[in-house]
Amino acid sequence: MRLYYGVDLGGTTVKLGLFSGDGELLEKWEIPTRKEGNGAYVFDDIAAAILQKTEAVGGVPGDIEAVGMGLPGPLQEDGYLEVCVNIGLRDVYPAQELSKRLNHIPVRCGNDANVAALGEAWKGGGKGYGSMVLLTLGTGVGGGVVIGGEVVTGAHGIAGEIGHLPVRPEETETCNCGGRGCLEQVASATGIVREARRVLARTGQDSVLRSLHELTAKDVLDAAKAGDGLAVSVMETVANYLGLAMAQISYVVDPDVFVIGGGVSRAGEYLLDVIRPAYESRIFLTAQKADLALARLGNDAGIYGAVRLVLGI
Amino acid sequence: MRLYYGVDLGGTTVKLGLFSGDGELLEKWEIPTRKEGNGAYVFDDIAAAILQKTEAVGGVPGDIEAVGMGLPGPLQEDGYLEVCVNIGLRDVYPAQELSKRLNHIPVRCGNDANVAALGEAWKGGGKGYGSMVLLTLGTGVGGGVVIGGEVVTGAHGIAGEIGHLPVRPEETETCNCGGRGCLEQVASATGIVREARRVLARTGQDSVLRSLHELTAKDVLDAAKAGDGLAVSVMETVANYLGLAMAQISYVVDPDVFVIGGGVSRAGEYLLDVIRPAYESRIFLTAQKADLALARLGNDAGIYGAVRLVLGI
Repeated sequence: MRLYYGVDLGGTTVKLGLFSGDGELLEKWEIPTRKEGNGAYVFDDIAAAILQKTEAVGGVPGDIEAVGMGLPGPLQEDGYLEVCVNIGLRDVYPAQELSKRLNHIPVRCGNDANVAALGEAWKGGGKGYGSMVLLTLGTGVGGGVVIGGEVVTGAHGIAGEIGHLPVRPEETETCNCGGRGCLEQVASATGIVREARRVLARTGQDSVLRSLHELTAKDVLDAAKAGDGLAVSVMETVANYLGLAMAQISYVVDPDVFVIGGGVSRAGEYLLDVIRPAYESRIFLTAQKADLALARLGNDAGIYGAVRLVLGI
Repeated sequence: MRLYYGVDLGGTTVKLGLFSGDGELLEKWEIPTRKEGNGAYVFDDIAAAILQKTEAVGGVPGDIEAVGMGLPGPLQEDGYLEVCVNIGLRDVYPAQELSKRLNHIPVRCGNDANVAALGEAWKGGGKGYGSMVLLTLGTGVGGGVVIGGEVVTGAHGIAGEIGHLPVRPEETETCNCGGRGCLEQVASATGIVREARRVLARTGQDSVLRSLHELTAKDVLDAAKAGDGLAVSVMETVANYLGLAMAQISYVVDPDVFVIGGGVSRAGEYLLDVIRPAYESRIFLTAQKADLALARLGNDAGIYGAVRLVLGI
């Protein structure tokens, strides 16, 4: 048998997937990320998990064809990782480390956000499209640009960092990046809550949100879906800036589809319905606009994208 | 001998270049673009020019290996051109038309702006860099995104249309595209003149520009270089919006280098010196920023890029 593994190395858990040669997910599971000794044992643990699973499915180590891995750090083009703060890894070639623990089989690594984008492009919301830009609306806003099956990684590690697209010059607060008016400040879960708090403080408008003590982005989205006027106007503001950022992206790479993922995307079709007109009204140069779709792989995007790095299909 | 031709089909002239197999420009020349009969004769004329040059250098038709051609229209992925308004061409596969007039040798076509970007990336200001974004500051603002030696053409024909990046929400006039606040409205030659006229009308500030009847972008740039306060402030405004657009581009594709071309770029290093700080101050996520360079091929970018389409080097 020929076995392929996709690994998504995170700060808390390592997600693993066993795949067939044609990209079918056969099994998935997790192990904890051991951070002792600045991550000294993570590669041992991952190799052991892979060997154990191989044995469990009746295989031998020689059946393992290749492993792809996503990790939360800025990998250099030659595979060098200077530092991965979440895990403590430092000054290491992760692919080499894992490969030498697995009889020197091919291992390829990528940045976790890029790898997740590759997964969504391949088997998720971007499936069947030639090019895709992923917008991940979570605690922050991340993204990934996939053209012709390849992630655009960029020259200085900031390709697809669409959370920092400048959209709101009048913003007065500072973004985590040090800038002001970044997309992330208004379109992340945190940003949506902040925007709602601002409108609640600025206006006397009645809203179900006023009775909530610990406001979450889900509260705002649920209220907007239910027709709460204040929540609707907050989401229109959010969609306005998302649409502006998507117009910026379209005039650079003009993707076939935008895929919206992250916790905020659990609001589902409603979210696409508010974003779509905000985006389309910004594009004047062509009548044909990019499609919008929801991410489909959730937390599995990373293992799919990781194995895609080593599957020549 | 093995001969390669690069053709840049424009609305007034056709530029042609004869190249060696290793991409050396051996000869270049021009013929007029015949627009009679909605461009019915352009492919005949181009084929005749190529055959004639081949004979002139002592070759035979069989020595022509391949031809690349850039043309001013939105080519579809399969090579179909619905319409090319400048020349009158309509409903045609240009590569097939040229190929069948040249013993069915390989011919590849591309959009002229994309092809010029490819030329600059290959042999011009982007030479030696892995990825490049070209900003062409002329009557309008055009561009091209080249990653790993390939032009990003986009799904709806608007990739690299950086002239329409939204940069100035407070703009009151409408852009040619129908939008408002596009980069082109402030950073094209036309835009620079308009900005200068606005400042001249709005302020009483002394300036050499006040004595000029027909203001040109060159006048503004020359005055700014000479230290004219009003002209300097106009160019700072222009550079501010260019820097903003470049930040948008960097957060999407993060190129190694931005190459500035078009008529405005004849202002030379001065232009880079005003744009650089405006761009760098917008990027917070990385200390390392993209390089800035001037375009180097001028009007030859098209023939270089065209032949690059058919040279496998």
